[in-house]
Amino acid sequence: MKPRSTEQQDNLKRLSATVIGLGRFGRFWAEMLSTRCDVVGTSRRRITDLPSQVRQVELADALKAEIVFLTVSISALPDVLHRIAPDIRPDATVIDTCSVKVFPAAEMERILPESVDIVACHPMFGPDSAGERTDRLPVITWPIRDRYGRYEAVRSLFTELNMRVEEMSPDDHDREAAFSQGVTHLVGRTLKEMELQPSPIATLGYTRLLQVMEQTCNDPLQLFQDLQQYNPYTREMRARFAGALEAARALLLDGDRKAQ
Amino acid sequence: MKPRSTEQQDNLKRLSATVIGLGRFGRFWAEMLSTRCDVVGTSRRRITDLPSQVRQVELADALKAEIVFLTVSISALPDVLHRIAPDIRPDATVIDTCSVKVFPAAEMERILPESVDIVACHPMFGPDSAGERTDRLPVITWPIRDRYGRYEAVRSLFTELNMRVEEMSPDDHDREAAFSQGVTHLVGRTLKEMELQPSPIATLGYTRLLQVMEQTCNDPLQLFQDLQQYNPYTREMRARFAGALEAARALLLDGDRKAQ
Repeated sequence: MKPRSTEQQDNLKRLSATVIGLGRFGRFWAEMLSTRCDVVGTSRRRITDLPSQVRQVELADALKAEIVFLTVSISALPDVLHRIAPDIRPDATVIDTCSVKVFPAAEMERILPESVDIVACHPMFGPDSAGERTDRLPVITWPIRDRYGRYEAVRSLFTELNMRVEEMSPDDHDREAAFSQGVTHLVGRTLKEMELQPSPIATLGYTRLLQVMEQTCNDPLQLFQDLQQYNPYTREMRARFAGALEAARALLLDGDRKAQ
Repeated sequence: MKPRSTEQQDNLKRLSATVIGLGRFGRFWAEMLSTRCDVVGTSRRRITDLPSQVRQVELADALKAEIVFLTVSISALPDVLHRIAPDIRPDATVIDTCSVKVFPAAEMERILPESVDIVACHPMFGPDSAGERTDRLPVITWPIRDRYGRYEAVRSLFTELNMRVEEMSPDDHDREAAFSQGVTHLVGRTLKEMELQPSPIATLGYTRLLQVMEQTCNDPLQLFQDLQQYNPYTREMRARFAGALEAARALLLDGDRKAQ
């Protein structure tokens, strides 16, 4: 992505943003943002491979930003919210990036001070897939509280960052994601458990399955566990997948007898 | 693919080939061959959408060719072999194209006259995937009987047709294919049984899963059934897939308790 000219940048208010959590996704996200915002990041660990435009700061300094992105695992979110709640700037807008939305939205409302604005957000891409997609990168947003009016600015920022912004309620998101991202990770982890290997006689379809396996299993195991556990629709998805596998195998019963 | 010049063609003996079975794959295969060979096709049905370079003829005429490709379903193969065995040219080379190899190789040896040469062959692509692959199209070959020395000519023909020829025994092929093509079709049919749909929030991985579903389910159901039933290794593959699904779900048990 080409940086805009200084003149163009001056026409926009340059946002200051904090990224809390500098794991693989957090570093990737901070780097994207840094092409359009002033970005600092914070983590309990000292991070050595930060993107060049991103500075690591102490939590207290990180909480001075007007926009605070949370790029921590779903299961870590409540603890992180409890840690930031006492010191967060009262007029901040907090935006999570978790792969489920109902649970984080409820936790942000429950734990953050009433004065703080909240946006639920899910970038449907990560460090592995972003570079391979040829279309704009889909991101889901939903305003939980927006009294300081930064929701539209954030959506514009995402659009400038080559994203396609879709508005979707947390509940709609979780139902849709269970039967798309959720089933993809279930298949990827299943293939990994089978220890599938590249083959000299790979069909195109098999090559795609291997890509799914590699990409989903390159994410932390915690992400698989969290997006299966904290999405209220994935239990049904997993049951339907197991039932569908039995239905597919049942297509074989007659043939089974013939072939033996 | 550009046709060679007449001069280049004259330097090669132009093979005459028959394609027995003019279903979707048979028509596709006949069309590929027709850029380098004189091709006739035969089918019990009258085919209206034949490729322009391919003539449909009666079985008796089809059996005059020196090379006879069988592009029928795996389960139909024994019947077809019994029908052609009495009238086939005694020095023909018969080449199957089935998605399993142990069973067709044994049936060809058992049913065809002793004088006839036999090649086991599996093109690891079809009408849907051939155009999407950017690499050379993989094809597996194995000489069962080659007294008329056409095996090398056939491999050269495949190379000219932009294929990557791999030699592999029927048993090795079936083991390898069960855990690549076989698992791919199992996943594709399972996803179809779930009735997965395109999603506005599709991740790259989910888009790939949908491609696998569409491509495998665009093949006849018979192909799924046959390649699961007539490959001696797919039963083990299906059991390992089901076990791996349980193992992937077991990764969730702790989280299950936490999330409830």
